[in-house]
Amino acid sequence: METAVFEQELKERTALAEQTLRAHLPAEEGLQRRLTEAMNYSLLAGGKRLRPMLMKETYEMCGGEEGFCALGYFMAAIEMIHTYSLVHDDLPAMDNDRYRRGRETTWYVYGDAMGILAGDGLLNYAFETAAAALTACCRETEADQGQRMAHMERICEALSVLSRKAGIYGMIGGQAVDIMDSGSGQAAGQGQGAPSGEEAMERLLFIHEHKTAALIQAAMMTGAILAGAALEEVEQIEKCAYNIGIAFQIQDDVLDVTGDSRELGKPTGSDAENEKRTYVALRGLQQAKEEVERLSREAVDILDRFEGEHGFLKELILALIHRTR
Amino acid sequence: METAVFEQELKERTALAEQTLRAHLPAEEGLQRRLTEAMNYSLLAGGKRLRPMLMKETYEMCGGEEGFCALGYFMAAIEMIHTYSLVHDDLPAMDNDRYRRGRETTWYVYGDAMGILAGDGLLNYAFETAAAALTACCRETEADQGQRMAHMERICEALSVLSRKAGIYGMIGGQAVDIMDSGSGQAAGQGQGAPSGEEAMERLLFIHEHKTAALIQAAMMTGAILAGAALEEVEQIEKCAYNIGIAFQIQDDVLDVTGDSRELGKPTGSDAENEKRTYVALRGLQQAKEEVERLSREAVDILDRFEGEHGFLKELILALIHRTR
Repeated sequence: METAVFEQELKERTALAEQTLRAHLPAEEGLQRRLTEAMNYSLLAGGKRLRPMLMKETYEMCGGEEGFCALGYFMAAIEMIHTYSLVHDDLPAMDNDRYRRGRETTWYVYGDAMGILAGDGLLNYAFETAAAALTACCRETEADQGQRMAHMERICEALSVLSRKAGIYGMIGGQAVDIMDSGSGQAAGQGQGAPSGEEAMERLLFIHEHKTAALIQAAMMTGAILAGAALEEVEQIEKCAYNIGIAFQIQDDVLDVTGDSRELGKPTGSDAENEKRTYVALRGLQQAKEEVERLSREAVDILDRFEGEHGFLKELILALIHRTR
Repeated sequence: METAVFEQELKERTALAEQTLRAHLPAEEGLQRRLTEAMNYSLLAGGKRLRPMLMKETYEMCGGEEGFCALGYFMAAIEMIHTYSLVHDDLPAMDNDRYRRGRETTWYVYGDAMGILAGDGLLNYAFETAAAALTACCRETEADQGQRMAHMERICEALSVLSRKAGIYGMIGGQAVDIMDSGSGQAAGQGQGAPSGEEAMERLLFIHEHKTAALIQAAMMTGAILAGAALEEVEQIEKCAYNIGIAFQIQDDVLDVTGDSRELGKPTGSDAENEKRTYVALRGLQQAKEEVERLSREAVDILDRFEGEHGFLKELILALIHRTR
């Protein structure tokens, strides 16, 4: 695919994901209006909409029917979960960030307490939105009972995967280990200091797998599940998404050493300065670059086993992994 | 029902709810172990298990079948949601409480950052647990397809109600308004000061309805829904639970004026001292007491329309509303 064609398609599909998200925003009304304003402020902060896009592309690759109502709900739900995790990450008690993507963070605009509640609201609303897919499916009057049952089972499975990958065995679990290792938080029992050697690598990969890869897995796996993919295919997708997530994070570490700070829009070399344990610090630059290559080659190999059209998905993944900013 | 009999039954049913909750705790293992420890520390802080108990009693009153697997999952899920709300409420950025029920609060033991993540983990795990009810139902091999479909539809409806009542149109919405009115949080846009007169009453009832009554509604409504109650019956239960929640809160205000501080285990008169807007402050003690009576009579009248056995449920509600501590 030519770069110009890819860029154009990326733009169109991002806009489509954005539109789906906007169709599921909570209304800014009632006495709790300021809360929903804070939630929508966070949701509309101009993300790449990567997770809903990956979900839709995987859905299509796996032969998902056009017009199955559940997809849109889940696309919105996963972006809400991703967003709440950023809102809570930015809190003073966590990373204490006042700006994200050049914009004031939610707590910095609405206050700490409302920042916590906006995050809670987004996480809860994500499941409310996914549950609405079930309700919509129950009302599918055109489908016969067998079809409806099959649709319901797909949605239930998707809900199960989404909640697991977002939770303590997924994203939240990764955040907890990251918090412990980075020593954030002031009170007792945290920041127990950095381990070294193989244990350090194990913890680093655990954090990358859970904090980053798990939600990419959730996106692609729910796309496949909603499309009716076989269990074995879903497992392949899970492996593919794991590779994407880990490669993405190692590339992040690589760019901090080799990247152009103007292109990145942030200073480079900060990891070394902060003595941050990264893949590059633990294994060296060369091995890090090779690992990114290996992981991405494997991810693409997995996709190539699928019969459905996935040219854009492949390009998207390669662009993500090999980005220079 | 005699007091001694009621007390004995209450003890037994609390133990049963506790046992159900313990069967659904997350395992304390893996690198994220400290996170699950913090979650279980919060969950096992010795609550009254009121919400799961109300759910089970309503389920039985509405003729729910014995052995329908979904009930236990939802009993555990609602207690996790209630618990996460306390964990986040206690955070320094919210109420800044170091003790609850004579025990150190979660953030005070595990640190701010882990307190936030433990709350997130509990909320997410609640939905993971409710989703597991769906998975279990999909595997009900004894039931024929029609029965399974009926069970699935009940669980979906219960999930929908639980997520709505816990969210921005329920509990979180109430917390947001409470935060705005009480002026918690230090940053811009919060604590806009107290309104007065009718507006103050409107806001007070909104907070009570959403922050307190919504989760009692969720408990009783999901109990009824899982039992297969008709829509009209579920609406009656919603009204009944509303009355219980509001009466409970007004009684709280009354006790702060009339209660015995030794019996309550906390000083009385603190509301007046803090110039807190309460039902008593806005309407006077006499009218507050009358409102508690009216609401509880109405709640019991609703229950009496149900054919199923509900002696204990009625006693429980009256004990809650008319408590002296």
